[in-house]
Amino acid sequence: MPNVYAVIMAGGAGTRFWPASRARMPKQLLPLGADPHESLIAATVRRIAPLVPPERVYIATGEALFEGTARELPQIPRQNLLAEPVPRNTAPCIGWATATIARREPDALVMVLPSDHFIGDEAGFRAVVTRALAGAARGFLCTVGIVPTRSETGYGYIEVGEDLGGGLSGVARFVEKPEQSRAEAYVTGGRHLWNAGMFFFAARTMGDAIARHLPALAKGLQAIDEAAAKGTEAATLAAIFPGLPAISIDHGVMEKASSQAGAVAVVRGDFGWNDVGSWESAWELATHDPDGNALPTGSVAVDARGNLVRDLTSQASGKPRRVYALVGVSDLVLVETDDAVLVIPRSRAQDVRKVVEELKARGELGRV
Amino acid sequence: MPNVYAVIMAGGAGTRFWPASRARMPKQLLPLGADPHESLIAATVRRIAPLVPPERVYIATGEALFEGTARELPQIPRQNLLAEPVPRNTAPCIGWATATIARREPDALVMVLPSDHFIGDEAGFRAVVTRALAGAARGFLCTVGIVPTRSETGYGYIEVGEDLGGGLSGVARFVEKPEQSRAEAYVTGGRHLWNAGMFFFAARTMGDAIARHLPALAKGLQAIDEAAAKGTEAATLAAIFPGLPAISIDHGVMEKASSQAGAVAVVRGDFGWNDVGSWESAWELATHDPDGNALPTGSVAVDARGNLVRDLTSQASGKPRRVYALVGVSDLVLVETDDAVLVIPRSRAQDVRKVVEELKARGELGRV
Repeated sequence: MPNVYAVIMAGGAGTRFWPASRARMPKQLLPLGADPHESLIAATVRRIAPLVPPERVYIATGEALFEGTARELPQIPRQNLLAEPVPRNTAPCIGWATATIARREPDALVMVLPSDHFIGDEAGFRAVVTRALAGAARGFLCTVGIVPTRSETGYGYIEVGEDLGGGLSGVARFVEKPEQSRAEAYVTGGRHLWNAGMFFFAARTMGDAIARHLPALAKGLQAIDEAAAKGTEAATLAAIFPGLPAISIDHGVMEKASSQAGAVAVVRGDFGWNDVGSWESAWELATHDPDGNALPTGSVAVDARGNLVRDLTSQASGKPRRVYALVGVSDLVLVETDDAVLVIPRSRAQDVRKVVEELKARGELGRV
Repeated sequence: MPNVYAVIMAGGAGTRFWPASRARMPKQLLPLGADPHESLIAATVRRIAPLVPPERVYIATGEALFEGTARELPQIPRQNLLAEPVPRNTAPCIGWATATIARREPDALVMVLPSDHFIGDEAGFRAVVTRALAGAARGFLCTVGIVPTRSETGYGYIEVGEDLGGGLSGVARFVEKPEQSRAEAYVTGGRHLWNAGMFFFAARTMGDAIARHLPALAKGLQAIDEAAAKGTEAATLAAIFPGLPAISIDHGVMEKASSQAGAVAVVRGDFGWNDVGSWESAWELATHDPDGNALPTGSVAVDARGNLVRDLTSQASGKPRRVYALVGVSDLVLVETDDAVLVIPRSRAQDVRKVVEELKARGELGRV
């Protein structure tokens, strides 16, 4: 079996975790999982370490995030960090990373993983990955579909098709984010899985698929390949990347390929996946005391239940530590950074966007 | 009329305002009134400035608080800060301060004021003070009784006696903190006032009263006087002060003198007095936005009502300021210092002591 490579997608920058998440400190660089000292991206790389050594892990990120990402992953060779000149959605990003890997090893198998998700059952996850890689070796564009646990309207779904053996199924279709009633039908019907944005393929299979479904992208990647051979990749990348089609790998490749028999496969996954979509999710994933609080070491809780406190100030890494004292408050989120403090009930975690909107209206969003 | 001197009592160190109040940062040094940039003691001195110039204001404090107090009151001559070697309750403190003033001006009139109270109607307060000083000039040991606004069981009361003219009344008796039912009767009866710990007297009157009612204290003060004449006050003070009777001026002098006709008088005061007993009081006194929030400048409040936020970190005096964002929370207190953060509903402000107890049990109270 050829070598396996990983591409970790780490270009995102959202505001759902304000004040923690910022332009230069997005969600994947924050410790939002069970361990308050491990960022989501560090956990992602650690999780696949038994399958892929660091020198075969690539990180696709943006120029603004390059240094922060490199600091977070000291074990990854610096030349494996790919900085997109501008964000052009996932197809150009995955296409470029795959082409880069293919120049190194044309027969490579590639797994593409988001950098900012949580996985509870890591051994179970690796078992699914191994199954998906076997599918990739058989020539499929493989994806993982998460067994849904609720009628979520915020995710895309994958309708499972025929059995392909080895734990693989065909894909009947990719479905956009559904209405509530359809989402409920999907969960009870048992034929739909969540699209978690994980992809597994032979580099050559993906190259062929891009050539077939996104010829403009294929042409751009070829120009980058030629420039790389001449040692002028950086300049060509800067010139070409902004003009590449800004389309997702789902829309641009996977959906189109799925109408083609035997091209796309899905593996069922049920390994405690969580996309860590809000401070509420961060509380769910955190380690709790018996009263359901997730607080910094040394905190005092009196009649306080279900609270999440995260001290992300630069002081937090020094000594002496700060004492958080919570008395008579329940189900609150308190997050501190050097220049901002957020207090919000867990149940309203989505309303962080209202704060972001207010700061944007004041012209202060860049500052805090 | 002889010159008027003020003695501001600033030796206290409580824990009701943890984490703001500490051994070296007691309540009077904190900005707990309407102006988030003015400490209670600075407000106390400013409030009487039209009546007493800084060079005639004395501050009675402890050695541990000396430097912090001096920094807070740069306009007061340093030699006017009196550092008690050990706290011995208010009678030795007031006796020593009065003796010190009497050496400078034997005919002086003296007002003794707590350093950690809030007064809403400052002009009204000064009018009452002027009346009480006139009583002091007539030879009374004068006090101010606050017209009660609720059946408070945490204060001592003064039962008003006969009319003495000039807005003065005799004192029928001083009453200890009453039971709830008696407190209610006091408020409706109209003959009882709150004892707010303010005293007005000629230095000579107080000297005579101490000689009569607390001879051991009088003897100690005489030894200090003699040492001061020889320039050895500091050493004598250190030797004598710890042995002085630890008794309050109320018990030691005022109550005893009140059984003596014509010795003690009280002036009614109704000037928005508040002893700032908890974070709840601090919220009441603070300046609010239309939703009842008292937040640092630049904060964001979304569906948030009745909250108090105080940033007492050293960062708060620097730039850029921190943004506090409160979403969907009501009637909360959030206080931050460099090493501690408190979150508590206003209605439970008294339970700060539970945090203090927990930290004491851990042996961490000195540190945070």
